[in-house]
Amino acid sequence: MAAKSRFVLQRLFNGLRTQSLWLQSSKSTSSQGRLLQRAQIRAVSCSHGLCRSASALTGPSSLSFRTHTCGELRSDHVGDKVTLCGWVQYLRQDLFVILRDFTGLTQILIPQEESASGLKSALCDLTVESVIQVTGTVRLRPSGQENKGMPTGEIEVLAENVEIFNICQKLPFEIKDFVKKSESLRMQYRYLDLRSSQMQQNLRLRSQVVMKMRDYLCNVQGFVDVETPTLFKRTPGGAKEFVVPSREPGMFYSLPQSPQQFKQLLMVAGVDRYFQIARCYRDEGSKPDRQPEFTQVDIEMSFVEQAGIMSLVEGLLQHSWPPEKGPIKVPFHTMKYEEAMRDYGVDKPDTRFNMKLIDLSEVFSASDVEFLRSALSKPGGTVQAICVPGGANLFTGKTLDELKQAAKTQFGQELSVVLIRADGTLKSPLKKLLSQSVTDNLLKTTGAKPGDVLLMAAGSLHTVRPLLGHLRLQSAQLLESSGVTLRDPSAFHFLWVVDFPLFLPKEDKPEELESAHHPFTAPLPEDSQLLYTEPHKVRGQHYDLVLNGSEIGGGSIRIHKAAEQHHVLKNILKEDTTLLSHLLEALDSGAPPHGGIALGLDRLISIMVGANSIRDVIAFPKSFRGHDLMSRAPDSLSEEELNAYHISVKWPTKHERCEEDERK
Amino acid sequence: MAAKSRFVLQRLFNGLRTQSLWLQSSKSTSSQGRLLQRAQIRAVSCSHGLCRSASALTGPSSLSFRTHTCGELRSDHVGDKVTLCGWVQYLRQDLFVILRDFTGLTQILIPQEESASGLKSALCDLTVESVIQVTGTVRLRPSGQENKGMPTGEIEVLAENVEIFNICQKLPFEIKDFVKKSESLRMQYRYLDLRSSQMQQNLRLRSQVVMKMRDYLCNVQGFVDVETPTLFKRTPGGAKEFVVPSREPGMFYSLPQSPQQFKQLLMVAGVDRYFQIARCYRDEGSKPDRQPEFTQVDIEMSFVEQAGIMSLVEGLLQHSWPPEKGPIKVPFHTMKYEEAMRDYGVDKPDTRFNMKLIDLSEVFSASDVEFLRSALSKPGGTVQAICVPGGANLFTGKTLDELKQAAKTQFGQELSVVLIRADGTLKSPLKKLLSQSVTDNLLKTTGAKPGDVLLMAAGSLHTVRPLLGHLRLQSAQLLESSGVTLRDPSAFHFLWVVDFPLFLPKEDKPEELESAHHPFTAPLPEDSQLLYTEPHKVRGQHYDLVLNGSEIGGGSIRIHKAAEQHHVLKNILKEDTTLLSHLLEALDSGAPPHGGIALGLDRLISIMVGANSIRDVIAFPKSFRGHDLMSRAPDSLSEEELNAYHISVKWPTKHERCEEDERK
Repeated sequence: MAAKSRFVLQRLFNGLRTQSLWLQSSKSTSSQGRLLQRAQIRAVSCSHGLCRSASALTGPSSLSFRTHTCGELRSDHVGDKVTLCGWVQYLRQDLFVILRDFTGLTQILIPQEESASGLKSALCDLTVESVIQVTGTVRLRPSGQENKGMPTGEIEVLAENVEIFNICQKLPFEIKDFVKKSESLRMQYRYLDLRSSQMQQNLRLRSQVVMKMRDYLCNVQGFVDVETPTLFKRTPGGAKEFVVPSREPGMFYSLPQSPQQFKQLLMVAGVDRYFQIARCYRDEGSKPDRQPEFTQVDIEMSFVEQAGIMSLVEGLLQHSWPPEKGPIKVPFHTMKYEEAMRDYGVDKPDTRFNMKLIDLSEVFSASDVEFLRSALSKPGGTVQAICVPGGANLFTGKTLDELKQAAKTQFGQELSVVLIRADGTLKSPLKKLLSQSVTDNLLKTTGAKPGDVLLMAAGSLHTVRPLLGHLRLQSAQLLESSGVTLRDPSAFHFLWVVDFPLFLPKEDKPEELESAHHPFTAPLPEDSQLLYTEPHKVRGQHYDLVLNGSEIGGGSIRIHKAAEQHHVLKNILKEDTTLLSHLLEALDSGAPPHGGIALGLDRLISIMVGANSIRDVIAFPKSFRGHDLMSRAPDSLSEEELNAYHISVKWPTKHERCEEDERK
Repeated sequence: MAAKSRFVLQRLFNGLRTQSLWLQSSKSTSSQGRLLQRAQIRAVSCSHGLCRSASALTGPSSLSFRTHTCGELRSDHVGDKVTLCGWVQYLRQDLFVILRDFTGLTQILIPQEESASGLKSALCDLTVESVIQVTGTVRLRPSGQENKGMPTGEIEVLAENVEIFNICQKLPFEIKDFVKKSESLRMQYRYLDLRSSQMQQNLRLRSQVVMKMRDYLCNVQGFVDVETPTLFKRTPGGAKEFVVPSREPGMFYSLPQSPQQFKQLLMVAGVDRYFQIARCYRDEGSKPDRQPEFTQVDIEMSFVEQAGIMSLVEGLLQHSWPPEKGPIKVPFHTMKYEEAMRDYGVDKPDTRFNMKLIDLSEVFSASDVEFLRSALSKPGGTVQAICVPGGANLFTGKTLDELKQAAKTQFGQELSVVLIRADGTLKSPLKKLLSQSVTDNLLKTTGAKPGDVLLMAAGSLHTVRPLLGHLRLQSAQLLESSGVTLRDPSAFHFLWVVDFPLFLPKEDKPEELESAHHPFTAPLPEDSQLLYTEPHKVRGQHYDLVLNGSEIGGGSIRIHKAAEQHHVLKNILKEDTTLLSHLLEALDSGAPPHGGIALGLDRLISIMVGANSIRDVIAFPKSFRGHDLMSRAPDSLSEEELNAYHISVKWPTKHERCEEDERK
C-alpha cells in the first residue's frame, strides 16, 4: 500500500453520465483516461497516513486498489502496467494463478527467474479462494496458447508484485459452477454460494432491472418514490401478519402484507403518482417457494382508469426489460377471467402452449353412460377433456395411473383416460359404452389424432376446470421430460386477466361473500348498481398480470367514495368498519379516483433469469421453514429480553405439539 | 368519461429519456405533441367498456384524465382546450373556482350565461377540497386582472364541463400553509397535512435526491443494489432491536438496526460494491426526533481505503444535491476527533460559526484562586472558556442563571460568568481574585472585547469540553433569537471527523472497554499492534460525516482477518463469539479488505430542506412515543392471535408500572 500515490482526484465529474461507458470493456480505459486528464489533480497533505488513491474517477474500478477488473483486459492493453484484485480461482503447474472477480478471470503468469523467487513462492503457496492484489504487465499469450473460450484469453499478466490480503482456509464446497451443492449447504454458506457466476449475474441483473424501473417511473412518468412504514396496525383479517410487541404492555405493531392503505392515503394526500420498491411481510409458515419477506413494485396513480395502469405497466416492463432477453411486445394480450377459466381451467394461464380445455357436454348430451348423464343432469354439471398430443405413446400406464390417483386425492374426481390407437380406434374402458356416432363426434370435437390421449372428467364446473387446468400443466411437464419441445424456454408470454368477480362465496360458509382480491377494489361501472341488489354478480375493476403461467402482478381501480366503501365493508363483507375508520374518513375528505398495481419483483426476476426458485434471485433467502441457515435465525431469547416487551413464551403442551405436527 | 377517446397509444417511447422534458412546463406540451404524432395510434375493440385513454405518453399527465397539471398553463396555451383535475382550493364570488394539484393553482372561470346555469350551480355548490375534473378553454385574464405572484396568473380556464369525483365533507383544519396546526392533529390527519405545498415539496425533493443517489451509485460507480433481510437473528448486545415472534414456540427474529453483517458478507461473497436504501429499526422508546424505523443509504466497497469511501460520498452528495440549494464544494474539510473535541467540545462540530473553546490552563497556571488551582492540579484538569460576542449586552441575568443551572444539573459543573464592561473592566465574582496581569492575559487569550461574555469552567477535560460544547450551541441559539445573524440558514458545512478512538471505557465499568462505534471497525494500520498491548490507545479507521453540526453518516474500514476480529470480540470486548461464528467463518474463507458507510437519509433530507424535524420529510412518521396517531398503532391483539405465536402478555404489576413511570 506504500506504493499508493499521495494524490487526490479532487473533482468527480458528476454531470457526466457514464452508464454505458464502462460496460464497453476495452473502450472504457481510454475514455476514462481522457476523464482523468480533465480531472483537477491536486496534492494534499495527508496527516493520518492514509491518502486518497489516484484511481479512476468513475466505473467499476474507481476509488479502488485495482486499475482494472479481472474480465476487462484485451490485446489493446498489452504493455500496460495493471493492478488486479481478486480471488484465486486455481493454480496451474506452479506457472499460473487464475484470478477471479465479479467480471471474470485473468491468467497471472508466475515469474520463474531466480531473482523473483520470493514472489514465486508467495504465489505458489496460495490456497484457492485466497484474496490477493497483483501488479504486473499485460502481455500477449504465446501463439497457440490463447483461450478463445475466455474473454481475456488473448492475454496474461506477468506478476511483478503481489499483496496477500487473506489466505482462505478449507471450504465446505468448491466455488465452481459445475459443483452441485445441496440447497441447505448453499444456504448455510451463502456468502460462498453467491460467488458463483450465476448468482453474481442474477443479483446484478436484478439491480439493473430495478434501476431502470425507477428511471421509468421517476424520470419518465413523474412518479414520486415514497417510503411507507412497516410497523403498522393490524389490518382486519390480517391473519398472516407478523406481530411486533412494543414496550407498552399488550400493545403490538403488525408488519403489513403490502402498503395498500398507505398508497391509497397518499392519493388522498394529493401525491398523484406514488411508487415504492416495497418490502412486504407474510407469515405463511412453510409454503414452497414463498418467503416471509418479499419485495413488490408498488404503484398507485390518481385520475386514471384501468387501461392507464395497464399501459403504464407495459411501458415499465418494456423500458426495464434486459436487452439480452429480447424485446417484448406491447400491448399484452388481455383475457377475461371467464375465458381463462373456460379455456385453461385457471386464472393464470400458461399461454405458451395450447392443449386447451374442451367442453364435451354437447357430445355426451344424449349419452346413456350413467356417470356422464348424472354429471350433466346437475346444475353446473359438465363433461370436459384435454387432448395431450402424443400422450398415448409417451405416457406409461404407470404415469396415467398416477394422474388418475392425483385427480382422486387432490380434486375428488374420477378421471377417464382415452388413448387413441394408431388405427384411430379408442383404448379405454369407456369404449364399449360409446356409440360410433358419439365416438366420431368425440374425436372431431377434441381434434384427437392417433397417438394422442384424452384426459376426461365429468362433474361440477367448479372442480372439473381446476382439475383439467392442473392436468394440462402436469402433462406439459411430462411431455417435456420425454423430450417433446412444448414451451420455448426463452419465450415470455405476458397476459392480462381482467373482469374478475368482485366477491366469491366463502369456502366454509358459502352463503356469505368474501372479496376475491381485497375490499378496496371498485366494481365495473356497469355493475356498480348490482352492489346493492346482487353483489355476487358484480365484476371488479381488477387486473392480474400473468407471465408464462405465473401471476406476477395484480391491481385494481379502488373505491374512492366513502359511502360505497362503507357499504362493501359493512353490508357485504360484514367487517368491523372501526378498524378502517381512518381510511373511510380519508375517502370523505376529498379522495380522487385512483388505482394501482403491485408486481412481485422476486417472481418476475426469477422468470426473467430462468431460475428454478425465487431463492436464486434473493441474496439471503430463508429456507422453506422460514429459517436463516447461515445465522440460525429465528433464535431463542432470554426471559429478560422478553420482559422489556411484556411477553412470555407460552410453551405448547405435549398434546398441542402433536396436533401441530399432524397439521404439517 | 364518455368523452374519453377509444384509442390506445400502443407504443410507449421507452428509449427516450424525457426527464428534463416535462419539467420545462411551457415547452413540454409541444414536445409531447410531436411524440404523440409519432405514436402508432390504433383503434382497439374494448370489450369491457373501459378503454385506454388518448392522453400523453410520458410526463406527469400521461395516461391520465387530465391533459395538463394545474401549475402548467401559460399565455402560450391561450385558445387550447384543456382538462384539469384537482382539489377546490377556494371559490370566489360565484365567479371563480381555484383548482389545485401538486404543481400549483389554476383559476377556473365559472360561465355566467343562463344556458350554462347547470354547470354554474354545480361549481358554485362545491365545498373546498372537493375533487373535480374541469374541461374548458384557456384564455388570457382581462387586462389588469393578472396575478404576477401566481405562475399561472396570466390565464384562466373558462369551464365548459365539470365532473365531480368526490364532495369533501367538513375538515378538521384548512389546507392552507398559513394555518398552524398542532403536531398531533397533523399526524392524526396526515393525509390532509401532506396536501400542504411544503410537505409536497419535501416528499418530492426526497424522491429526486434518492433517485440521483441511485443513479450515481448504480450507473456511474458500478454499485449493485442488493436487498438484505430484516427478519434476522439478534445481534450481540442488540438491546434496541425489536423482536418478532415466529410460529415456532420460543423462537424469535429480530429487526436489525442496520444491514452491517449482510453488507460485510456481501463483500466476502465477491459482490464488490453494494448499496441499499435500507429500512432500519431501532427501539429506543421515546427519544426526541428519533423514529422506530428509519432509512439509511447503506454502502460497502471492497479493495478500498478510507480515502476512497470519503471521495465516493463526496461525489455522491455532489451528484445528488438539489441544484436550487446551491453547489457544494468537495473535498469536504477533515478534522481529527481530538481537534473536534479540543476546539468544539463535541465530535460533531457545527463549523458554521466560530466561538471555539479556549484553553485557559496556562493563564491560570500560577493562579491562587482555590477552585482553579484545585482543578488544574488533578490529572486531566483544565480551565477553559468560550467567549460569546455581545453576550454581555444580549444575555439577561436570568439567561445567565439558567446557563449556570444547566451546567450544574446536566454536567455537575460550576460555571463562571465573566462580563466585559464597555470600559473593558470585568464584571464577575472572580474579578477581585484576579491580578491585573492575569486579567490582561485572560482578555488577550480569549480575545474578549467590551460587551462580550466569557463562560468559563474548571474541572476534568471529560466534563469541561462537553459542557462548553453544549453552551456554545446554546449561546448561538440565544444570540440568534436576539436577532444576531450567526449562521447562514442557506449554508451547508460538511465536515469529516476522523481518527476516533477504537474503544472507550464502559460508563458503568471503566476498567472494561467497549467499541466506540462497532466491533467490526479496523484499527489505523500504524496502531494495529497496539491491539495486543494497549488497546485503549488504538485509533480506528472510522469516519463520521457531519453537516451543520448534525451527524449524517458514519462508516469505517472493517477488520477483514478472522484472527484480528476474534481477538477484538473475545479478548478486548469479552463478547460471546458463537453469536457471530458465521461472520468469523466468512472472514476465514476469502474476505477482501473492505469498508463502507451509512448515511442517515431522513436527517440529511431534513437539513437540506430546513425542516425542524425528520417527521417533516417522512410521509407517515410515528409520534414521540412511537405511535401512529392516524391508525392508532400499536394496538392490542386477541389471545387467539397471540396463541399462534406462542406468546402471552405479561401484564406489569402496579408496582412495576409505577417504577416504569418514574423512569420516563
